[in-house]
Amino acid sequence: MGKKAILFFDSSELNPDLRYAIGFHIGDPVLYFEIEGKKYLMLSDLEIDRGKEEAIVDEIVSLSSYIVRINRPQEGYSEIIDLFLKEHGISDIVVSDRFSAFHYKNLIDKGYNIEIKKSPLYSERKFKTPDEREKIRGVMKNVDIALQKAFDLLRDSKIDGNYIKYGNEIVTSEMMKRLINTELLQMDTICKTIIVASGVQAIDPHNTGSGPLIANTPIIFDVFPQSLIHGYFGDQTRTVLKGKASFEQKKLFNTVLNGQKMGVEMLKDGVNGANIHIAINSFFEKEGYKTGLIDGRMQGFFHGTGHGLGLEIHEEPRVSSAVQEIMRTGYVVTIEPGLYYKEIGGVRVEDTLYVTKNGSDNLAFTDIFFEIE
Amino acid sequence: MGKKAILFFDSSELNPDLRYAIGFHIGDPVLYFEIEGKKYLMLSDLEIDRGKEEAIVDEIVSLSSYIVRINRPQEGYSEIIDLFLKEHGISDIVVSDRFSAFHYKNLIDKGYNIEIKKSPLYSERKFKTPDEREKIRGVMKNVDIALQKAFDLLRDSKIDGNYIKYGNEIVTSEMMKRLINTELLQMDTICKTIIVASGVQAIDPHNTGSGPLIANTPIIFDVFPQSLIHGYFGDQTRTVLKGKASFEQKKLFNTVLNGQKMGVEMLKDGVNGANIHIAINSFFEKEGYKTGLIDGRMQGFFHGTGHGLGLEIHEEPRVSSAVQEIMRTGYVVTIEPGLYYKEIGGVRVEDTLYVTKNGSDNLAFTDIFFEIE
Repeated sequence: MGKKAILFFDSSELNPDLRYAIGFHIGDPVLYFEIEGKKYLMLSDLEIDRGKEEAIVDEIVSLSSYIVRINRPQEGYSEIIDLFLKEHGISDIVVSDRFSAFHYKNLIDKGYNIEIKKSPLYSERKFKTPDEREKIRGVMKNVDIALQKAFDLLRDSKIDGNYIKYGNEIVTSEMMKRLINTELLQMDTICKTIIVASGVQAIDPHNTGSGPLIANTPIIFDVFPQSLIHGYFGDQTRTVLKGKASFEQKKLFNTVLNGQKMGVEMLKDGVNGANIHIAINSFFEKEGYKTGLIDGRMQGFFHGTGHGLGLEIHEEPRVSSAVQEIMRTGYVVTIEPGLYYKEIGGVRVEDTLYVTKNGSDNLAFTDIFFEIE
Repeated sequence: MGKKAILFFDSSELNPDLRYAIGFHIGDPVLYFEIEGKKYLMLSDLEIDRGKEEAIVDEIVSLSSYIVRINRPQEGYSEIIDLFLKEHGISDIVVSDRFSAFHYKNLIDKGYNIEIKKSPLYSERKFKTPDEREKIRGVMKNVDIALQKAFDLLRDSKIDGNYIKYGNEIVTSEMMKRLINTELLQMDTICKTIIVASGVQAIDPHNTGSGPLIANTPIIFDVFPQSLIHGYFGDQTRTVLKGKASFEQKKLFNTVLNGQKMGVEMLKDGVNGANIHIAINSFFEKEGYKTGLIDGRMQGFFHGTGHGLGLEIHEEPRVSSAVQEIMRTGYVVTIEPGLYYKEIGGVRVEDTLYVTKNGSDNLAFTDIFFEIE
């Protein structure tokens, strides 16, 4: 077998493997080849100058110089890929599972051998460099700044029946999300989805929240923005309650907090993520918090403990009883247990951490507390 | 040949065909089948309740009920697809060219006949319903509100040498982008990339702009946000100049404006988009504005005249001399000619329009002018 080429045809905005490879943000799909460690990025005339300045590749190739030389323009990029690979003596290709079925079929028909690798194509993406760690820490700092504004608004608000009022305005999930995103934007960071959910909405971890926030119930703030500059994510959840917490609410909060702390303390190089999840869940059970179908809906701790993040909000490794994943120095993962009960509400606490030899470096800045009076 | 199934395995946030099919926003990849017009959406337990409320489909299928029944979980979704299709007596599948090469190969190996259609899989996406048109118009209204804030700031600023000062602060591209996005966010609309480029930066249509805005040079504002609520885009460009325009700058601006007006007037059901582009370009040439390589860089009018938009910022049809596309009632396209010269600067004017039988409905709200004193 001859030389192999790694091949992408995608937008680096949508394909984190490609963004990782070229360190360059581009919204339109581009061709990228990697042959024996040498990186080639093919760009249109409009993008060539920016590419030369910003992309971390060995050679910028002119797309238009290929377009004029292909015979069957209706096949478009498959023809260009074919021409480029022929010129470089390549017949073996590696693509990620996100590669387009259309170009896959065309290239198979042209006689190429194609290996499809599951994303991430670059498994080293799991291991964050100090530079990547600091980029994520920077996003986490932005999350803290934005969240403090939201908490300040709750502090300056008053309870009016079931609702919370800021001046004459009823405080809603939407208002809080806008406030948080407005702050994030000032720091060139954006969060397409933010969860600000209270009352019964907080019991469903995928409900992002809408309408008035409910006083005296846990309010989950889950913020996972991406930097518009470098593309890395951060992820953090805090749960607060405006008003006075009941005994049951306080106990639920403290149990989740202690479970989360236990997870953070267990996290270090060599530990199996599944064991972290199992330990937290056992602790919850011991404290009397069962997980399973109750009254026809899932209640308790029914999601994973955490996930890797970087150029994707969810990437390898998972921290969950569903997989056996040994944590390694350089991984960045969340630890985010939660408990959700129809009668009491939903509580989740989440930090993002960098795994080290003897423990972890917590990248989150925001203090953890429950009641806001 | 038996029944055919349209198949998606994607996130509707990333796949506009899927979002179009189900009218439902979901960030994680989901399975979707369409068999003889009947729509099936497979969701995890976490998403089922929200799906039942929001997705416009005939049946919500429980993902977990399939997961427990597959034999080779390592093949994951290919196995689930296989099981679902077998139960429905399907051996012929239609996927879009964005379908994953990995699952394509697995399904071919299982004996399925797969037709790969170029995106958009639903060609009717080109024809916007009144509801879609009004969603786009709503985004265009948001663009106008945000842009007025930016222009107000320029009006309240003073020129200091080459720079523009708002109070004691030098006005930068970044400041303007933040201001615009902050306003957009208040209306649940977001623009991941905004172009605010002046001076030499404006000559490169793909340079989004950075650093201080340059007084007495054309400043291009190109804003193309997406609604966070329904996912539709808007797209609009205005070019203004803070200070006093020279004769050459004014002539350049007026020529682009008149070219753009000509394009808007030509636009109607039955016209060939290529002819619109050619007419504008001929007009520019007649006015003395040549296009081509000058001093080693592309100058003049070297991009297309417009593009369709909807759930994607760039979708069919293109308005360009590179393709023969007959405009049809219901299309929504931009008309956005520009002229870019090293010595004078860059000017582009863009509206988004809904094509009608006898002309078009201009969805843009913002007045067109050049100088801001």
